[in-house]
Amino acid sequence: MYDRLKGFRDFYPGKMRARREAMDAVEASAAGYGFREIDTPALERMQMYVDKSGEEIADELYSFTDQGGRDVALTPELTPTVARMVVAKGQALSKPIKWYSTRKFWRYEEPQSGRNREFYQTNVDIFGSSEPASDAEVLAVTSDALRNLGLGSSDFEFRVSHRDILGGLLRSFDADVDVRAAIRAVDKSEKIDADEFHRLLRDAGLTDSQAVRFDDLLDAGENDLDELVDFAGENVQSAVENLRNVLAAAEDYGVREDCTVSLSTARGLDYYTGVVFECFDRTGDVNRAVFGGGRYDDLIESFGGQPTPAVGVAAGYSTLSLLLQRAGVWPDEELRTDYYVLSVGDVRPVALDVARDLRAKGHTVETDVSDRSFGSQMNYADSINAETVVIVGERDLEDDELTLKDMETGNQVAVPVDDFPDYERPTIEDYE
Amino acid sequence: MYDRLKGFRDFYPGKMRARREAMDAVEASAAGYGFREIDTPALERMQMYVDKSGEEIADELYSFTDQGGRDVALTPELTPTVARMVVAKGQALSKPIKWYSTRKFWRYEEPQSGRNREFYQTNVDIFGSSEPASDAEVLAVTSDALRNLGLGSSDFEFRVSHRDILGGLLRSFDADVDVRAAIRAVDKSEKIDADEFHRLLRDAGLTDSQAVRFDDLLDAGENDLDELVDFAGENVQSAVENLRNVLAAAEDYGVREDCTVSLSTARGLDYYTGVVFECFDRTGDVNRAVFGGGRYDDLIESFGGQPTPAVGVAAGYSTLSLLLQRAGVWPDEELRTDYYVLSVGDVRPVALDVARDLRAKGHTVETDVSDRSFGSQMNYADSINAETVVIVGERDLEDDELTLKDMETGNQVAVPVDDFPDYERPTIEDYE
Repeated sequence: MYDRLKGFRDFYPGKMRARREAMDAVEASAAGYGFREIDTPALERMQMYVDKSGEEIADELYSFTDQGGRDVALTPELTPTVARMVVAKGQALSKPIKWYSTRKFWRYEEPQSGRNREFYQTNVDIFGSSEPASDAEVLAVTSDALRNLGLGSSDFEFRVSHRDILGGLLRSFDADVDVRAAIRAVDKSEKIDADEFHRLLRDAGLTDSQAVRFDDLLDAGENDLDELVDFAGENVQSAVENLRNVLAAAEDYGVREDCTVSLSTARGLDYYTGVVFECFDRTGDVNRAVFGGGRYDDLIESFGGQPTPAVGVAAGYSTLSLLLQRAGVWPDEELRTDYYVLSVGDVRPVALDVARDLRAKGHTVETDVSDRSFGSQMNYADSINAETVVIVGERDLEDDELTLKDMETGNQVAVPVDDFPDYERPTIEDYE
Repeated sequence: MYDRLKGFRDFYPGKMRARREAMDAVEASAAGYGFREIDTPALERMQMYVDKSGEEIADELYSFTDQGGRDVALTPELTPTVARMVVAKGQALSKPIKWYSTRKFWRYEEPQSGRNREFYQTNVDIFGSSEPASDAEVLAVTSDALRNLGLGSSDFEFRVSHRDILGGLLRSFDADVDVRAAIRAVDKSEKIDADEFHRLLRDAGLTDSQAVRFDDLLDAGENDLDELVDFAGENVQSAVENLRNVLAAAEDYGVREDCTVSLSTARGLDYYTGVVFECFDRTGDVNRAVFGGGRYDDLIESFGGQPTPAVGVAAGYSTLSLLLQRAGVWPDEELRTDYYVLSVGDVRPVALDVARDLRAKGHTVETDVSDRSFGSQMNYADSINAETVVIVGERDLEDDELTLKDMETGNQVAVPVDDFPDYERPTIEDYE
């Protein structure tokens, strides 16, 4: 017997049904806003990731040399790939470019609850607009998706931050600060204690008292944004204004209540530039970010393209499923079957005709493919949660009749073959 | 600028839309017959493929050693993985097990038209039934899918063969035949000339005259099956009967006309055991198999499971798209947008309300995220093929009005804000 690789999962039909429903809800939201589906390779050149993140990224990736001598990696995220695609088409794409896709990614990390080595994400991105409306639209698509799945405002919040506010505050200290390192420290701050956080900030160039002061400033809520401008002046003024404009746009999009200003949210990746956000479980039961996104205005240019502002979100399903389960709205994992057409005797042509007619009306219809007994077929119909069983029997057919059986009530009724299926979704009530 | 890897493709929205429609049609057919979606890992242990196909398979795969020292491969096909999954659940799964999935696979082959290193397949499999009805159901699912896509009986045929007839014929010769090697030769026979085919058969153990005789026997059509029994007797009798029963079942499933007996069809993979088939373009313009499938009754047991008969098909989209294009039914690659809500002036809250109401009715609705002029928004609406533009203007709003514009005719009409959108899919005709 062969074993599955660690950190990889097999999805059998029940779990897959629930997961598909979650994916469909997110995709339907994106499609409703006019985002268009794309599809992208599972393998890319390793260099693309090394250039963005340094050689050490190799430890986190599935990378290898292919038979043609190319250093390649299983894609750990979508953003570099879509940046490559935008650059490849140059000015041929009309702006704004609005894309989404749901696919797998791979990272060589230690598996834990909500984290696997192979995982699904739906990415939703807008290229070509720096307007606050585009940041807000990404928040709105995400919020609509979560609401479509049954979550409400008491279930989730978007903790919204701004990379340029963080950078501006850091640059306001009289110190030689490694801004990227300090922002990476902010990204870790929720998972470590204050001493450890301050140590990382000192490593990034702040003095001890500056680190404490910076930590205090991160507590600023949406009513304290003026204090940040008082402290850092022009270093943060336009970023604060941008954050306020994004929140105002979020208000118009109807998702302002989902947003909480939280400067200690930073996102780990270096390429973010403006507003960044993370989705959290408001109850705290899922005690880390469910997923996140943000603005990355410099990435396309750094890939050799024309300067092209961009903003997006990557919704991951491993953590999203934890949130949906916590909130009691994880989709049903039961199989659903509209009809099982049961055959008794030499009736296959009629049974298959009936099944074909029901399928033509859009129903899920199973028939016997194993030449089994009445009882065995009935058990199987039960195992697939068939709502109605259509019994096609040799003797009934002599009277030109079928029998419909409602599997919930156990009631059944005889139906003339010629009258079936006269209705869009025939039930025994239609013939009683 | 980074380049895409050879044999990999980026799907931009237009091409993706068409491909998604093709995938949806195939999946809808499978789901209608009660096949259930599953999802499976992109990486498996290399040993699984080496055990089935020998060390030389490594040349055709993307294989590598992961950071944990595991020899792994990007999955080149689904069948070994689903066999592993069936074995892992043992007797817990109720039979028949009917699964489908659409996903990518990878092979390190030389790319050509209709063949890429990364490719999509929808796999549809039944485990647990050896009855001819299960072979026929797989043919029927496939035929329905192709018909849903707009193909008709003059476009495609299933060339149906039987591994045990081929094996039985080969064993009837007074020779020490390597049956697997001879069947692999049959699989190649359509692509090579007769001399080369006979040479491969001689390599497999037949004499020259036996090879010629065997080649003649492969010409047997459905009316010549008795001659095969006359020649090979018990070696082929039950296989011929099984093939006839599958064709009779195909008749009841309404797909008999799609099936042609073609013994020179063999399928390349070693694990097939009974009926095998390949889908071909009847016009011959696409001059190789579009995709194929068949019965593999021994695989589950060889993976350490209980003996479990199985039959399935793997529909690949690279070749399928060639067939659909040849037949002129490749789905439309144009983007579709129901509404573009155009804003003029300081009207964002109203414009977004209108957009939200339209989305709630299930429509695709875009709005301005770039703070652009009227003309620029109108050009964009045109570029995304918006059917109707809803113009929300400051001045119109003073009169509590919107303007609807039909983008095909250019006609427009003023509409009271309060009356919009009163209809499920409001058009200018509703308000004229």
